Amino acid sequence: MTHAAPPPVVPSSRADASLDDDHFHDECGVFGVYNHPNAAALTALGLHALQHRGQEAAGIVSYDETHFHSHRALGVVGDNFNSEDVINQLPGTLAVGHVRYSTSGGTLLRNVQPLFADLVFGGFAIAHNGNLTNAHTCRHELVENGCIFQSTSDTETFLHLIATSHYRKVLDRLTDALNRVQGAYSLVALTRRKLIGVRDPLGVRPLVLGRVGDAWVMASETCALDIIGADYVRDVEPGEIVVISEDGLKSIKPFPPQKSRFCIFEHIYFARPDSVMDGRSVYGVRKEIGAELARESHVEADMVVPVPDSGVPAAIGYARQSGIPFELGIIRNHYVGRTFIQPGDHIRHLGVKLKHNANTAHVKGKRVVLVDDSIVRGTTSVKIVEMMRAAGAKEIHMRISSPPTTHPCYYGIDTPDQDQLMAHKYSIAQMAAHIGVDTLAFISHDGLYRALGEEKRDADCPQYCDACFTGDYAIPLVDHNNLTEPQQLSLLAEKV
Amino acid sequence: MTHAAPPPVVPSSRADASLDDDHFHDECGVFGVYNHPNAAALTALGLHALQHRGQEAAGIVSYDETHFHSHRALGVVGDNFNSEDVINQLPGTLAVGHVRYSTSGGTLLRNVQPLFADLVFGGFAIAHNGNLTNAHTCRHELVENGCIFQSTSDTETFLHLIATSHYRKVLDRLTDALNRVQGAYSLVALTRRKLIGVRDPLGVRPLVLGRVGDAWVMASETCALDIIGADYVRDVEPGEIVVISEDGLKSIKPFPPQKSRFCIFEHIYFARPDSVMDGRSVYGVRKEIGAELARESHVEADMVVPVPDSGVPAAIGYARQSGIPFELGIIRNHYVGRTFIQPGDHIRHLGVKLKHNANTAHVKGKRVVLVDDSIVRGTTSVKIVEMMRAAGAKEIHMRISSPPTTHPCYYGIDTPDQDQLMAHKYSIAQMAAHIGVDTLAFISHDGLYRALGEEKRDADCPQYCDACFTGDYAIPLVDHNNLTEPQQLSLLAEKV
Amino acid sequence: MTHAAPPPVVPSSRADASLDDDHFHDECGVFGVYNHPNAAALTALGLHALQHRGQEAAGIVSYDETHFHSHRALGVVGDNFNSEDVINQLPGTLAVGHVRYSTSGGTLLRNVQPLFADLVFGGFAIAHNGNLTNAHTCRHELVENGCIFQSTSDTETFLHLIATSHYRKVLDRLTDALNRVQGAYSLVALTRRKLIGVRDPLGVRPLVLGRVGDAWVMASETCALDIIGADYVRDVEPGEIVVISEDGLKSIKPFPPQKSRFCIFEHIYFARPDSVMDGRSVYGVRKEIGAELARESHVEADMVVPVPDSGVPAAIGYARQSGIPFELGIIRNHYVGRTFIQPGDHIRHLGVKLKHNANTAHVKGKRVVLVDDSIVRGTTSVKIVEMMRAAGAKEIHMRISSPPTTHPCYYGIDTPDQDQLMAHKYSIAQMAAHIGVDTLAFISHDGLYRALGEEKRDADCPQYCDACFTGDYAIPLVDHNNLTEPQQLSLLAEKV
Amino acid sequence: MTHAAPPPVVPSSRADASLDDDHFHDECGVFGVYNHPNAAALTALGLHALQHRGQEAAGIVSYDETHFHSHRALGVVGDNFNSEDVINQLPGTLAVGHVRYSTSGGTLLRNVQPLFADLVFGGFAIAHNGNLTNAHTCRHELVENGCIFQSTSDTETFLHLIATSHYRKVLDRLTDALNRVQGAYSLVALTRRKLIGVRDPLGVRPLVLGRVGDAWVMASETCALDIIGADYVRDVEPGEIVVISEDGLKSIKPFPPQKSRFCIFEHIYFARPDSVMDGRSVYGVRKEIGAELARESHVEADMVVPVPDSGVPAAIGYARQSGIPFELGIIRNHYVGRTFIQPGDHIRHLGVKLKHNANTAHVKGKRVVLVDDSIVRGTTSVKIVEMMRAAGAKEIHMRISSPPTTHPCYYGIDTPDQDQLMAHKYSIAQMAAHIGVDTLAFISHDGLYRALGEEKRDADCPQYCDACFTGDYAIPLVDHNNLTEPQQLSLLAEKV
Repeated sequence: MTHAAPPPVVPSSRADASLDDDHFHDECGVFGVYNHPNAAALTALGLHALQHRGQEAAGIVSYDETHFHSHRALGVVGDNFNSEDVINQLPGTLAVGHVRYSTSGGTLLRNVQPLFADLVFGGFAIAHNGNLTNAHTCRHELVENGCIFQSTSDTETFLHLIATSHYRKVLDRLTDALNRVQGAYSLVALTRRKLIGVRDPLGVRPLVLGRVGDAWVMASETCALDIIGADYVRDVEPGEIVVISEDGLKSIKPFPPQKSRFCIFEHIYFARPDSVMDGRSVYGVRKEIGAELARESHVEADMVVPVPDSGVPAAIGYARQSGIPFELGIIRNHYVGRTFIQPGDHIRHLGVKLKHNANTAHVKGKRVVLVDDSIVRGTTSVKIVEMMRAAGAKEIHMRISSPPTTHPCYYGIDTPDQDQLMAHKYSIAQMAAHIGVDTLAFISHDGLYRALGEEKRDADCPQYCDACFTGDYAIPLVDHNNLTEPQQLSLLAEKV
Repeated sequence: MTHAAPPPVVPSSRADASLDDDHFHDECGVFGVYNHPNAAALTALGLHALQHRGQEAAGIVSYDETHFHSHRALGVVGDNFNSEDVINQLPGTLAVGHVRYSTSGGTLLRNVQPLFADLVFGGFAIAHNGNLTNAHTCRHELVENGCIFQSTSDTETFLHLIATSHYRKVLDRLTDALNRVQGAYSLVALTRRKLIGVRDPLGVRPLVLGRVGDAWVMASETCALDIIGADYVRDVEPGEIVVISEDGLKSIKPFPPQKSRFCIFEHIYFARPDSVMDGRSVYGVRKEIGAELARESHVEADMVVPVPDSGVPAAIGYARQSGIPFELGIIRNHYVGRTFIQPGDHIRHLGVKLKHNANTAHVKGKRVVLVDDSIVRGTTSVKIVEMMRAAGAKEIHMRISSPPTTHPCYYGIDTPDQDQLMAHKYSIAQMAAHIGVDTLAFISHDGLYRALGEEKRDADCPQYCDACFTGDYAIPLVDHNNLTEPQQLSLLAEKV
Repeated sequence: MTHAAPPPVVPSSRADASLDDDHFHDECGVFGVYNHPNAAALTALGLHALQHRGQEAAGIVSYDETHFHSHRALGVVGDNFNSEDVINQLPGTLAVGHVRYSTSGGTLLRNVQPLFADLVFGGFAIAHNGNLTNAHTCRHELVENGCIFQSTSDTETFLHLIATSHYRKVLDRLTDALNRVQGAYSLVALTRRKLIGVRDPLGVRPLVLGRVGDAWVMASETCALDIIGADYVRDVEPGEIVVISEDGLKSIKPFPPQKSRFCIFEHIYFARPDSVMDGRSVYGVRKEIGAELARESHVEADMVVPVPDSGVPAAIGYARQSGIPFELGIIRNHYVGRTFIQPGDHIRHLGVKLKHNANTAHVKGKRVVLVDDSIVRGTTSVKIVEMMRAAGAKEIHMRISSPPTTHPCYYGIDTPDQDQLMAHKYSIAQMAAHIGVDTLAFISHDGLYRALGEEKRDADCPQYCDACFTGDYAIPLVDHNNLTEPQQLSLLAEKV
Repeated sequence: MTHAAPPPVVPSSRADASLDDDHFHDECGVFGVYNHPNAAALTALGLHALQHRGQEAAGIVSYDETHFHSHRALGVVGDNFNSEDVINQLPGTLAVGHVRYSTSGGTLLRNVQPLFADLVFGGFAIAHNGNLTNAHTCRHELVENGCIFQSTSDTETFLHLIATSHYRKVLDRLTDALNRVQGAYSLVALTRRKLIGVRDPLGVRPLVLGRVGDAWVMASETCALDIIGADYVRDVEPGEIVVISEDGLKSIKPFPPQKSRFCIFEHIYFARPDSVMDGRSVYGVRKEIGAELARESHVEADMVVPVPDSGVPAAIGYARQSGIPFELGIIRNHYVGRTFIQPGDHIRHLGVKLKHNANTAHVKGKRVVLVDDSIVRGTTSVKIVEMMRAAGAKEIHMRISSPPTTHPCYYGIDTPDQDQLMAHKYSIAQMAAHIGVDTLAFISHDGLYRALGEEKRDADCPQYCDACFTGDYAIPLVDHNNLTEPQQLSLLAEKV
């Protein structure tokens, strides 16, 4: 890690679009239903509850004893799957669904999941949250053998591995395929008779199991069970294949047992606060991180102000621990408006203002503890701080409820290249200077683990995947290490 | 307040649509710019900041020294006025804009403002927040004299009164027209040389004046000045006509002076918390109402939970005053989703769950003070309380930061008919029983006025318009009192 | 008329769009139904049959004893009025409809007819084929008196004249209005109890009356009666107001009697060949014109080739009279394709080729008589001739079934400015040279009248309106003569 | 020909849609360009000229030295490929395109061609006119081996055969694939360096070769060369692979030589009259068929009337041979309008009237020879004849420029099932009675061959594929004969 002099932040291809939403982004949410007369409607609702995991596209595949039915669309679930017409086109008692946050420049319909294929044993639909670290390598072999890929998503790799497996039965083919891939994956899949859920051996990405009446449900988070009134049964375990069929639930564990490494960032930012992950309330963890932050880096101030909305739980925890009043010092405009014409030089930081406004009457002349969940490129932080200064804040003490994010994620999270990560390039003091705050503090690694109920981070065998803070990558980065430059997956140009 | 059997008045066509958004609704926001090279772009941004005042339609009219340019569209500003193409179709240094929340069953494009007309003295564009109480009566006379109305909005009445006035000059015609109407109105209007702002004699609806560089700005709220970096100058005064032209600002007061009656509900719910209205921070007022509520109706409890997002400031005030911890006991899904297929009987209260989910892990077994801003029909309250009960809340004490809403508004706010107002039909004890809470309390009339810095409500001459709580209608309800049944404005059927 | 040296043809604002459709354009077709349970469906069909009279917009207003219902749309009838949904939104037993060919650069929805207004006596809908020659003058007076125009179409003038008439009854108001306008107009109008049809005193534009079962029908042409199986009753007479009500048909003749002057170009080009106009088969007239042409300007040749499709009947007549074989020497591509990217210099005359292709195998080495209906700017003729030359035609003798079009039309036909009319600028010899034909001949004035059954043109009092060939304008050009430059009707910019 | 009771085969889902367009339908047109800077624009124009071969979808794939670019859309070329935006998204000097007439109930985007795949040797795009008769059989084997099909079009079979071929070079793989399929196919394909054209061994479907400047062009018909100003070079020969690369044109003939069997129906109906097929002018052939018809089945009459537009050339030939005048007795409305609400019982045969109207004034009391190109189900003929009777035709003598169509086509033409073919079910006398004509005659088999310049049909080895008239299927119907019921290609339901 170099701490060279801080020149202007390097612009990235996504910089403009995400200028005002400077976060890591979860790439996907998955959902599946077995044995419910309104399987597609339940799936649409579940995906709506998982919408924060991906807003760029959504899809549902259902099966009605005769045909599979597929509807996939760019945009949010509420715009595409809320009409009776659409749901009626997805009949049947089995369904799987997917919400997607695209990592490539343009989201292509051909990449929208669930993917479906007519395989020799019948139809097969699959939806995937995560990322394969040897997808390119697998794909290359498959194409050599005559496989034709229709998408550039690594999910299709599963399809071809299953299609070309020399085993006969679906589950044997699936196991065969899983043994050939590496990566983080929570899968839900549908055959004509089974709903299948899989988590990778380390359980990096979440997947839970629920029941509503006689139906089984799988979802990325418990909030998707809540919306349909389903009861939480248990998490699908790391390395487990759960098969739901007319024979009930069957659990297969095809991998050697390993200690799990659940993604710690789900607790910090990705998951919805009302979800329970790995047995812990996400909201509770976030408040506790805030409290830890207050203990670790207390400061005299007049108010604790969250950057809405993701900073709110930690700010509540910080305020309560510190005794400093919690105030809405920044007001969020909930109406969509990411692009507007910039009307000349009069307006500074228009982007951030489309969503946020300083509560000037209350901030003016005050010492503010500003609580946010993370700093990625730092672009938004710079603007928010400047907005708070313009509103008259006397002191600004920024407190971040994650450790510095110094490394990219290869396990299904959209992160900038490492050289765009502010914490990779600069020391904390440099960051504070660049952002323009009086003080800046991050939660410590151990403080974060304490908030999760651990005594401290187990450096030999960390309890969570925290590679983005530590560079400790638990799953081999096969493609990444093999390649000097990114491999082109398709000669077909992507349309924006 | 009568609790007799409710006689059917007129059925509201909006009941179903707003089932899960049980609020009074502001009908409009207005914005105007004089002398800025990017007048339309500024207006689009201002309207985006005013989006909470009306989401069903938006429009902008600009003037470029040669032509007026108009673009009006159904939907939110961010979907219709954020592209360079659209803004380039609105050239010029003068512009007025409008966001609209429709009161009629269907929002018609012909009713979307600003309205424009070619009058004998040149073009005239007008945008209006409020409601005329003698619009029907005026319209009837105008049609008798050969006027052809194109819309059913009462804003068009202004146009025809100005067009048919026997005065010659625009301002004389405008004054003539204002003298013939009754009601609540904040207007912005555009001629080829002037930007005009008007507030009705009682100043029921807001209108503020700002400057950015050499340009003048008018807006319904100060948050619309903030987004474009404009400085707040002053409120347009009740009964004042403000004319901006190349001669600078000119103030005309055509009405006899009266004590103002600003809408008290702007402070309770309509305005954005970061706006300053009538010299007071809206966020501060709401926190203070919460504190008053805590003083007036304290209860032992484990947590104060706001109904997001409108209940948050009062809940913060209540929590701080009472010392009971503030907690996010209800999590809001910010993605749009008002309609989804209801998948059978398994799911209770799906509607409310599309937007809200109980934070079960924290609510279970707890005594909850639930803070909301108002109860209108009570439909949403019933569902939210049931959701909280299902999540295991042991006690629920509901605290409302407005007095009981017993009367409809005729001054530009969309309210249900009186017989649908829960507080009109039931006593507070009955309401508590119906909603299913352990206790229910509303802020008192005097408590509300105290939160606004008054000693108490002046019963003889109230400091605010609070007709929705008291039935004390300061502006005569001309049309309402003249009519036994609703007058049909047009023989042309409205398309949904 | 000057015959100066032929420089490059002056480009016009519509030149590009109409480059390959170099015709005069009828501006409108009208249709009305009284007393049919499917009035709107019949109207949609009638308008479809009249589609050749206007393709840019269409509209229908119906009345169902309670409300008027209106649907107007840009585009052709078959795209906008063919669905059950749309027709069901137009209930009632009375309906009027309109198809429109816009003369202004952009077709605006606000100009699409029928226009509707709520007048003091009830609703009133009106559709108009033609043009008022004193519309600007009337409009100016009306605006002075406080009328607000919503469109720039002169049809709205009728509405305001009726609205502000001092008479009480509708028919008196209508007669009052008609006495104040000058121009060519065939109107159909709807009140709550009446279907009204009007033709101007000279009967320039067509309007026929039919019956289907118990219903009455009015239409611009008989082909619109045919499509719904209605029987032709008679033409509405020049200067006649026909009123259909529950009292049956009533005829009013409010004007002093005059000799009629029906538009001769309806016979030449505008009307559909299967229509009967003024008692004459349009197809028959066109064949007869072709025969007259053959008599007047015979030439030795191998084949008679029509420019499809409008030149076909005259070509058949020419071929039969001359004994020269009729051949499809030009093949038309019926699929829409007015704009395509021009891929470099390799392609000459792409525009014309999108619709036409020479039948090279048959044209090569042949002497061709090329029959077309008119030459307006000459742009298309140049290209078609060049295409035929490229295909190897040895000689090209162009024969035109109208006299030279030397004057613009002010009576409801879209014509270029006079200085763009090829026949205004050049002699026939110059035109032949410019177009590149071996010989060029137009039908003579008398020949044209002979084809219509007259002995010859009555120069003192012509039997038809033929101003576009002669400059003999029968209706005073009030606006045109009053103005030195075109008057701006509205300060509102038209959106393209 | 059997006239026994028709056993139910498989109901056609297209019966209703095509009720008023009772023709066989060509399924596709193809186009390709090599070495032109505006390859995609040329392709769009070529496809526009081939639009009559398929109106339901169109697609273009281009290659720009780096990427392949694909745009495919439902609808006609002029609506989807005429904008600069779209063409600019298809850069490069190589392109192939396709227009499609779908045979399945709904046209799916996934079936729209050209298909593209990333194969191990690079990208490969393919467009296909025709039909494989062993597609199901091939597909079954490929799926068994792990191939995943994305479409239900048999064109994808080529892709997988090429992808899984054990040869290394593209042309060897292609030849390998061609040796495994049976059927009628004219292909154009694109690799990164080659434009490839192929015709099946019998040359059933057309494919021509042209040049424009330095570029090579391939197209289904010569009219697509004309529109871009390309010169016709020669037909691709039956069984020939033509490869265009930087080495120029290379011809490969991988099949044993056979006598060709070009589709005779291209001459009768499919091809555009201005195309030259197999060295013969289509227009000339059609006129000659009309003349043969006049010789074979002369009748005394007053006029020869074509059913527009396809009957026109034969009617011209018939009229000239018989000396009976050619008249437009039926007028076609060229505006689109296939569906309209049927307004009650008053209107008979609305469907046919949306497109056609009898020219009553000329038909009344006349003896009419009605010339059409074919009778498929007979539904339209019944209606047209009834319309002509209603218009007063005294006698109707129907003359058909094809022999009776008694058999379905399996070679790329959309035909109804055999039991829906009127000529399969009935004798000519029965047909005449059913249609309601005074006499009915078809061209004889030998007459048809004479019109094509042959002495007569060679029964042992017919010069053309005429299976639809004779049942003489030259290419084995592998799938058809193997199957007792239609094979389901995909478990994925097709969306309408």
